[in-house]
Amino acid sequence: MCALHICTMLTFKELSQTFAEKFRQQQFSNTSALYEAANYFLDLGGKRIRPVMCLMANELFDDINPDAWHVATAIELFHNFTLVHDDIMDKAALRRGQPTVHEKYGASTALLCGDMMLVTAYEYLNKIDNKYLHKIMNLFNRTGKEVCEGQQLDMDFEQQNGVQLDEYIRMIGLKTSVLLAASLQMGAILGGASLGNQQHLYEFGKNLGIAFQVQDDYLDAFGDPEKFGKQIGGDIRANKKTFLVIGALAASTPAQQQELQQLLQDDSADKVEKVISVFKSRGVDDWARELKQQFMNKAMQHLEDTAVISKRKEPLQNLAEYLMQRES
Amino acid sequence: MCALHICTMLTFKELSQTFAEKFRQQQFSNTSALYEAANYFLDLGGKRIRPVMCLMANELFDDINPDAWHVATAIELFHNFTLVHDDIMDKAALRRGQPTVHEKYGASTALLCGDMMLVTAYEYLNKIDNKYLHKIMNLFNRTGKEVCEGQQLDMDFEQQNGVQLDEYIRMIGLKTSVLLAASLQMGAILGGASLGNQQHLYEFGKNLGIAFQVQDDYLDAFGDPEKFGKQIGGDIRANKKTFLVIGALAASTPAQQQELQQLLQDDSADKVEKVISVFKSRGVDDWARELKQQFMNKAMQHLEDTAVISKRKEPLQNLAEYLMQRES
Repeated sequence: MCALHICTMLTFKELSQTFAEKFRQQQFSNTSALYEAANYFLDLGGKRIRPVMCLMANELFDDINPDAWHVATAIELFHNFTLVHDDIMDKAALRRGQPTVHEKYGASTALLCGDMMLVTAYEYLNKIDNKYLHKIMNLFNRTGKEVCEGQQLDMDFEQQNGVQLDEYIRMIGLKTSVLLAASLQMGAILGGASLGNQQHLYEFGKNLGIAFQVQDDYLDAFGDPEKFGKQIGGDIRANKKTFLVIGALAASTPAQQQELQQLLQDDSADKVEKVISVFKSRGVDDWARELKQQFMNKAMQHLEDTAVISKRKEPLQNLAEYLMQRES
Repeated sequence: MCALHICTMLTFKELSQTFAEKFRQQQFSNTSALYEAANYFLDLGGKRIRPVMCLMANELFDDINPDAWHVATAIELFHNFTLVHDDIMDKAALRRGQPTVHEKYGASTALLCGDMMLVTAYEYLNKIDNKYLHKIMNLFNRTGKEVCEGQQLDMDFEQQNGVQLDEYIRMIGLKTSVLLAASLQMGAILGGASLGNQQHLYEFGKNLGIAFQVQDDYLDAFGDPEKFGKQIGGDIRANKKTFLVIGALAASTPAQQQELQQLLQDDSADKVEKVISVFKSRGVDDWARELKQQFMNKAMQHLEDTAVISKRKEPLQNLAEYLMQRES
């Protein structure tokens, strides 16, 4: 397991590094403030998980198609476009420990910078072979709209009481999972996968993304602060709706619901401590671990059902496991 | 002239109405607030000049290619995406006399609504034949980035003293003219035009767009309020940098420049009157009419140089003249 783990991590690292290098070389050279802002943001880094997933899904079926590098670049640009615009909407001051684009360059430049990144994503898509262009664009566009819908739903839900778990899962699916799912499917398409295999990889990514979000929410309250790398309870302090809140409300009586909602709107010094203790009293910690495992199992089943020999699945399998064990 | 004029206006009207009908039928049916906001904005109307120019440029060379309707839709969606985002940046309260998207639905929904419109534009592009897709996408993407660059430059210039006329023309070219130009070139491509003819139509649109902007700025100060349909001096009150300001500063001594800049930053009751009188004393009214005519002449020369029989050029010729005589 350890040897395998190391070998896979290298593969992930290799792909991630090779991608990062290519990505860096494609820096914008235009002198407009717009491109300076984009270069600044893209240089903040990130694990480049989505493009690597695209490349890995391609490799599952065949050697990397040169077009996959263009598609991977388009995916990463799209992802960064959503981050820049999300930061504006969330009024976030920091991203990866550094000032966000709108903090550094102003909201208007940030807005335009995001727009320009999105258009540039399509420039990279337009480099690929005619044979794939319609199919890839179709998936890319559908996904793009779904991500916007997910972000809108997230904002709607923040204003809304009584959001049900299935609605919340649907929102998370749109907001964060479909891009992971589509990245995998695009790689599969470029690797020449059958439609059935494409769909299994899509579902692998979709369920993995939801499991990942459950884990993220879980770690905010129950993570080890040392390993988690950031302060516990950020979501709670910001009164963010998370899987834990949805789960806790679902396990509460109407009176308890009101009490929890009151507590969440509170700003007392011991708010985080109190909310975590309510979460525990409702069994939300066990429930969230179980929920994450359910989605993780579904994801792995879809990878299992993908009709290629097991050996080729190891990089994706191990990447998934690595992401799911992460505590930072 | 009159008969011709009427016939052309009908052609414009016909195309505009047919396009508007098709466009309306493509209303978003999704229930998300995002799509409601988009439908609201698209229903505010507009003359649909860009898509009609695309269709007219196609008709210059051949019957309308069914793909031209998709491209025209993509162009109009792109244009509306820029309007929604520009309104956020300008903090504009009204558009076509109605509340802007961010006023009605909030800034975050407006931002996402614009993003979604842009992705949807690419959905329409993706409907066209493989034969044209790469070429059309290439032009569309380049234009998209240029429009973002133009908007950024416009914001930069607002903060900057001593903007020269040629820089200002370049900015206006990017911000408003390249989309007109590209709309024409895309229509020409779909009509099977040669590269030379495509380029003439591009330049026709580019110069026409600049002439149109000069006229727009001119009318704000020197238009007949009755025919202009809005209050005189809106740009002056908002201290907007326009062709008139650039021209007036260029024709001023350093002392006069300072005086004018002081006046523009002023908020006195007779500001508009005073500024217009400075414009007149520097001969800016004649200069602007001359500048508009120069660009108009260049535009018409490119239409003239387009290698198709004159008869087919009449709709575009008359549309250009109609736009240039407009006082509203």
